[in-house]
Amino acid sequence: MTTKMIYRFGKVCEGDADMKALLGGKGANLAEMAKIGIPVPPGFTITTEMCIEYYKAGGFPAGLEDAVKESVKWLENETGKQFGGSQNPLLVSVRSGARASMPGMMDTILNLGLNDTTVEVLAKRTENPRFAYDAYRRLLTMYANVVMEAHHGIFDGPMDEARKSVAKAKGLDVPADIEALGRAVPDTMLGVEELKGVCAAFKRIIAEKIGREFPTDPYEQLKGAILAVFRSWNNDRAILYRKMNGIPDDWGTAVNVQSMVFGNMGETSATGVCFTREPSTGEKIFFGEWLPNAQGEDVVAGIRTGRPIAKGREAGNSLEETMPEAYQQLFGIQEKLEKHYKDMQDIEFTIEDKKLFLLQTRNGKRAGRAEVKIAVDLVGEGLIDKETALLRVTPERLNELLFPAVDPKTTAKAIAKGIAASPGGVTGVVAFSAEDAVVRAEKGEKVILVRIETSPEDLHGMKAAVGILTSRGGATSHAAVVARGMGRTCVVGCAGISINYAAGTISASGTTIKAGELITIDGSSGKVYGGDVPKIPATLGGEFQTLLAWADAARRMKIRTNADTPHDAMKAVEFGAQGIGLCRTEHMFFEEERIPAVREMILASDKPAREKALAKLLPFQTADFTGLFRVMKGLPVNIRLLDPPLHEFLPQEKKQIEDLAKTMGVTVAALEAKIAELHEFNPMLGNRGVRLAICYPEIAAMQVRAILTAACSVKKEGIEVLPEIMIPLALSKAELTIMHEIVHKVSAEVFAQAGITVQFKFGTMIELPRAALLANELAEEAEFFSFGTNDLTQTTMGLSRDDSGSFLPAYKDQKILPHDPFVSLDTAGVGQLIQMAAEKGRRVRPDISIGICGEHGGDPASIAFCESVGLGYVSCSPFRVPIARVAAAQATIRARTKK
Amino acid sequence: MTTKMIYRFGKVCEGDADMKALLGGKGANLAEMAKIGIPVPPGFTITTEMCIEYYKAGGFPAGLEDAVKESVKWLENETGKQFGGSQNPLLVSVRSGARASMPGMMDTILNLGLNDTTVEVLAKRTENPRFAYDAYRRLLTMYANVVMEAHHGIFDGPMDEARKSVAKAKGLDVPADIEALGRAVPDTMLGVEELKGVCAAFKRIIAEKIGREFPTDPYEQLKGAILAVFRSWNNDRAILYRKMNGIPDDWGTAVNVQSMVFGNMGETSATGVCFTREPSTGEKIFFGEWLPNAQGEDVVAGIRTGRPIAKGREAGNSLEETMPEAYQQLFGIQEKLEKHYKDMQDIEFTIEDKKLFLLQTRNGKRAGRAEVKIAVDLVGEGLIDKETALLRVTPERLNELLFPAVDPKTTAKAIAKGIAASPGGVTGVVAFSAEDAVVRAEKGEKVILVRIETSPEDLHGMKAAVGILTSRGGATSHAAVVARGMGRTCVVGCAGISINYAAGTISASGTTIKAGELITIDGSSGKVYGGDVPKIPATLGGEFQTLLAWADAARRMKIRTNADTPHDAMKAVEFGAQGIGLCRTEHMFFEEERIPAVREMILASDKPAREKALAKLLPFQTADFTGLFRVMKGLPVNIRLLDPPLHEFLPQEKKQIEDLAKTMGVTVAALEAKIAELHEFNPMLGNRGVRLAICYPEIAAMQVRAILTAACSVKKEGIEVLPEIMIPLALSKAELTIMHEIVHKVSAEVFAQAGITVQFKFGTMIELPRAALLANELAEEAEFFSFGTNDLTQTTMGLSRDDSGSFLPAYKDQKILPHDPFVSLDTAGVGQLIQMAAEKGRRVRPDISIGICGEHGGDPASIAFCESVGLGYVSCSPFRVPIARVAAAQATIRARTKK
Repeated sequence: MTTKMIYRFGKVCEGDADMKALLGGKGANLAEMAKIGIPVPPGFTITTEMCIEYYKAGGFPAGLEDAVKESVKWLENETGKQFGGSQNPLLVSVRSGARASMPGMMDTILNLGLNDTTVEVLAKRTENPRFAYDAYRRLLTMYANVVMEAHHGIFDGPMDEARKSVAKAKGLDVPADIEALGRAVPDTMLGVEELKGVCAAFKRIIAEKIGREFPTDPYEQLKGAILAVFRSWNNDRAILYRKMNGIPDDWGTAVNVQSMVFGNMGETSATGVCFTREPSTGEKIFFGEWLPNAQGEDVVAGIRTGRPIAKGREAGNSLEETMPEAYQQLFGIQEKLEKHYKDMQDIEFTIEDKKLFLLQTRNGKRAGRAEVKIAVDLVGEGLIDKETALLRVTPERLNELLFPAVDPKTTAKAIAKGIAASPGGVTGVVAFSAEDAVVRAEKGEKVILVRIETSPEDLHGMKAAVGILTSRGGATSHAAVVARGMGRTCVVGCAGISINYAAGTISASGTTIKAGELITIDGSSGKVYGGDVPKIPATLGGEFQTLLAWADAARRMKIRTNADTPHDAMKAVEFGAQGIGLCRTEHMFFEEERIPAVREMILASDKPAREKALAKLLPFQTADFTGLFRVMKGLPVNIRLLDPPLHEFLPQEKKQIEDLAKTMGVTVAALEAKIAELHEFNPMLGNRGVRLAICYPEIAAMQVRAILTAACSVKKEGIEVLPEIMIPLALSKAELTIMHEIVHKVSAEVFAQAGITVQFKFGTMIELPRAALLANELAEEAEFFSFGTNDLTQTTMGLSRDDSGSFLPAYKDQKILPHDPFVSLDTAGVGQLIQMAAEKGRRVRPDISIGICGEHGGDPASIAFCESVGLGYVSCSPFRVPIARVAAAQATIRARTKK
Repeated sequence: MTTKMIYRFGKVCEGDADMKALLGGKGANLAEMAKIGIPVPPGFTITTEMCIEYYKAGGFPAGLEDAVKESVKWLENETGKQFGGSQNPLLVSVRSGARASMPGMMDTILNLGLNDTTVEVLAKRTENPRFAYDAYRRLLTMYANVVMEAHHGIFDGPMDEARKSVAKAKGLDVPADIEALGRAVPDTMLGVEELKGVCAAFKRIIAEKIGREFPTDPYEQLKGAILAVFRSWNNDRAILYRKMNGIPDDWGTAVNVQSMVFGNMGETSATGVCFTREPSTGEKIFFGEWLPNAQGEDVVAGIRTGRPIAKGREAGNSLEETMPEAYQQLFGIQEKLEKHYKDMQDIEFTIEDKKLFLLQTRNGKRAGRAEVKIAVDLVGEGLIDKETALLRVTPERLNELLFPAVDPKTTAKAIAKGIAASPGGVTGVVAFSAEDAVVRAEKGEKVILVRIETSPEDLHGMKAAVGILTSRGGATSHAAVVARGMGRTCVVGCAGISINYAAGTISASGTTIKAGELITIDGSSGKVYGGDVPKIPATLGGEFQTLLAWADAARRMKIRTNADTPHDAMKAVEFGAQGIGLCRTEHMFFEEERIPAVREMILASDKPAREKALAKLLPFQTADFTGLFRVMKGLPVNIRLLDPPLHEFLPQEKKQIEDLAKTMGVTVAALEAKIAELHEFNPMLGNRGVRLAICYPEIAAMQVRAILTAACSVKKEGIEVLPEIMIPLALSKAELTIMHEIVHKVSAEVFAQAGITVQFKFGTMIELPRAALLANELAEEAEFFSFGTNDLTQTTMGLSRDDSGSFLPAYKDQKILPHDPFVSLDTAGVGQLIQMAAEKGRRVRPDISIGICGEHGGDPASIAFCESVGLGYVSCSPFRVPIARVAAAQATIRARTKK
């Protein structure tokens, strides 16, 4: 290997912040800090390539050992200390550091270089033998655990003994309980003699229980530690973290070897963690915690309670007050770092005998609200431009601003956790049926509708509720899709709760909640709580609006919404929707006053009877569309003709069937026969969409008549209208030709009667692979395509979204699919069809309008894909419109800048 | 228009047989016959383009009237007669004639040119006034019906009156019943006076009932007749015929105007229809019927019983004996025509006063058996080559040779007609349950299993039966697929029968049949008969084998079979299968002695319990594969790992669930919970195929172990083996990688244990659009692709084959789809994916083996498509192997010769 294996940082500096891939985030930042004159303990970084090489070679990479020795020599020179030396021993830390931050996921070893000899030298030099033996004890513990892979707890005995003897010596009662003992005699109370005894005992235990001696050779220690960091890349925690965060397994980690500085060398020493801005609100205040006489891990682990960095209103124990000089230096450094990195920084520092060292700086994690505020503020401060600010925001996290949320600081414990399906934190009384939900809501109660799963018959109950909780179903189940559309908070697939309709109870984690009792659900985390839990409100103003305005200026694609009612449409327009991308007319069919006519239509034995029933529906549908057109004021309104199989409109339960038979004046047997006739083995692939319209063209004719009649009447009111008539589930041009003919015929009649005409578009939903494959033919009839990505995913992948719960988890675990394809578009497969169809469509009709209206329309990764294939718009549920606006802006910027 | 509108035939001849597109089949053949010196009454043909022009213009095409007049003048010259002339009037026939034969589908008018004047001239010239008025009467009837579009039956009165007066005159009893009257006094008994009266009455009726006079101007008659032929192209019969035969609507018909000759000018005149070979057997004998003193329609309509053309064993009334000279001339002509056209001819002739005229010749329709015999015989006679012979055979009709069939000459009336799902004619006693079928079969009865629909639980009953009849389901329903696989005769979707399980009866067309009573089903026509019906046997020898041998020499693609048992495999090998393209292992799971272990596996609560159950299945599966490998003797055996969702193996009915719970030692509630857990909304898109193997890899491991253990043991017997392990329903490379790993691991174990190794292939079924789109990735793992075209059709088109019955008929009626895509591959959509996948696969792995194993593998049109995209093989059910062999040969020949 001729590759450079190691990069040093100190007075000279071989790396910089741009080398994250090779040096990891931590290593690159240490190098960068050193480069710009920040006081950093000198050290060196072993590259990520060495980690990869380690896994390839199955051991220490060739040549690395020599390279490490050379760098240690350099470090001795740099610090004036000697590794394992008897005059001024050099101690080092060994830390992992991957390209992406993986906090707490990998192991760290401190105080390396100590042994029975050097610990004594250190004790003498520092005149602080307690500190030296405490450091040695820590090294022994960490080394045994991390490098020698000891079982946890093997060191408990000696520490407890030491505590007991201290307690006795001080004349304290010795608590029998070990935890109580730990509280009564904290580590800091152990004196040098106890610690010496502990160190001796630890070495004995290591030799006995692990079967190998603790290595006294510092180079051997160092080699073991480096190997341990390499190994830690593939420990269970790290693998899980990568899986959860989409980090490739083949990046590897760098290893940082850095000279130690000590925050625990007495009261003139300290350590701390600070942020350049408040990470939960984004306010520009210097914020953090510190501890005197402590090592970094003490702050992070929270063993001792940290003190504030900056002075508060009252006099206190802040760093600013305790060590004003170090504080002033730190304050200047944090300002410098934020300006240098142009982002809020998360900084670790140590003060060793009044001397300040920076151990790490990185872009700080922050809450969604803070993300927006900081991004906008940094633009105001001239540090970044608007596009950079837009790219800094995670669109998904805007949910945190759009809805009230369960207070992240709550101490309440969740009783169960499901799939976060529609955001917000809400509290309400439990109702187990749609009817009960309606009754309670009418009494003024806030209701959480709790169902095993929901069906279209639950719609009025879902509307009446503030939140919906189901024990089954995934992120695109009926409950999830409808709740998102309505803006209701929703948790689905909460398998941890057991719902007993008969008893009227939910049980989970030993808690039982009855109908009418309070629960709280958090649709952003999926958590379910018994009782009420404190919440924080939505934040829609200020920086949020500023950011959205920038997004609107930056994005190419338009954002539409999926909305079925004037109420939803109005909400969406408030959120910035530029049209309706999908109005599902069947939802209108379920309204209580209409469903009898719908059922009459379905049960009609011939066309005249069916037309009679349809005539009853016509005024309802006309009124529906009139309302939508008035709200949308000339923005495009895309209306999909009836889509679901007819059996969805008929009841399935015996009692309901009997009731309906009575109402309809038919026998139960006749009704059951009709229901049986409509039964389908695979309703997803059955008689629905345009197939219904081919079998019963009069249904489509009624709907077209309603759309255009409404359009004419609204236009007469002086309001612009732009209807789009969308044919669902087409698989051929011929279907569209037949439907187009109906539209032509009906429109001529309606316009003649109204005495005016309106412009409208005719087009189709692309939901089947065949439609995508033959998009060039379809485009001969269709003036627009709207990809129904839910169904297109189902058919392309052969996945029923209602059934995939039984195997999709295994598919994600085994990395067969990178993510749930119903949440984020399968770009490799489904995306290929979308791209193909868009190209074929444009070839035939260059000005064809193309968008997507599936659930993916609100998913940032899917939106980025839509940008990449040049779609005209995405359509999503009202509450995701702001997210889509930002995601679309990011996609446009990234496409242009390749950022 | 400068196009030539009319082509004449007579002494000079402007057209020939190659001009069928322009002149129609009849016109082109008349021209051809005239050209080669066959005596044909002269005439002319108005081109098909004029018909298309008529539909475009909505009336008589510009210029055509003048062109017709010119040609009439020419015809007057050619015949020495005058159209409407008072000396020697020219009478003409006007006949339709499309590019493809559409027998009886369009209207014909004879004797055109007669009116009150010319009829008298004709009467005098022929000295046969009865003949003249009979001709006039016929013209009036036809003209009124066809051109003037009179209601049928308006002419009944006068004929009945005439019959009555003749009966009275002859002193006969006048039957009150009109049909009896017709029999008592046939047309031939009506004298000239009666016919004159009839003509006068007809003209009156025309004027009164239609409101227009019968046109006396012959040119006006001719124009009306031409228009009527144009119109007849779009009459209901013609449209239906085209739909049934796949003839495009935009071909149009030609119009043949031909001078009349009369077979009804007395006893020296005659008319007849003959075939150059016997059309039901193909024997080389001159065959046909004739009638003295008759017009062609008399023979075709069968009003009078025809006499044989050729002399029989006994002296009789044959043409050969009655008019030996004309017969000899006709015999020579038919020989000449067959040699000229190199195919069996269907000839119409007329003898007018001893003079022979040929009115038409065309390739004769023939039975499937005759098709094969004639094709092979013509090769023997040197008239055609083997490739032409192969192209002459309709592969689908080979079914007629493979199975006994209901005798086409039967007079038995069908009580219902369903979808012909698996060929053959069988008679058996009705059984309504699988159990009853088994019991009866064990008693030695032949059984027809009658079910509303079948499920895998009916398998043993289907096996025990000779035929299966269902009232629901389509050509690819469970019953149809399984029956074809087993070679059982099957009629499905027979909606006309009503099955009452409780009463144990079938009702149809007023007939009720009880369990145990005989019915006959015809799986080639879909017909169902009460009782026994005569049948003709299968014919597998002679010419059939010769033809198959030629097909094998000609075809490029290999033919495999879908077979799950050694019995089926043996049958398929007998029929010429070159391997197994699909062995469905799940069918083996349903066997009575295995299903308990299968259910134990499904109900297992953890992996060890599941492995215990699988261990019980291992020896069964090993035995299954051992049997298959022995039969196939080194031919490839493609075995698909478990495919169906697990719930298919569990009972659905309460009683069966209770029984199973008892057997399995679990509670009914627990079993019901498991069944509910396995329930899927869209099982087609659920947890099946490789998804099962991803969730439960131990199932796949057991199957692989069984396959390879069997392969090793058969190889040790000295028999070659070539297993192919096929992974169903893959949608990604990753699934294949995981499965390949299992296969590697298990194969290493099995080979180590056996002490030998066997070659095998690993590959996948392509059933999902995503798999086709990512075929390049899949090919990195897969050594073969097998297109599962049933499922690929379902997913690509979003059609559930079990549910599409509710709308597919509307789709075919409205020509949205050209055919049932489950019968013949949707080449535009599904075919596009197949082609794409084959290309992508070959790009990555040039030697990849590619075939199809869906139901389409036995469909000739689909086979032609497979040839066009270069697949290596098709696989079909055993009884379709001969069909596939011929279809594949045709595809190869057509691809090369573009025939």
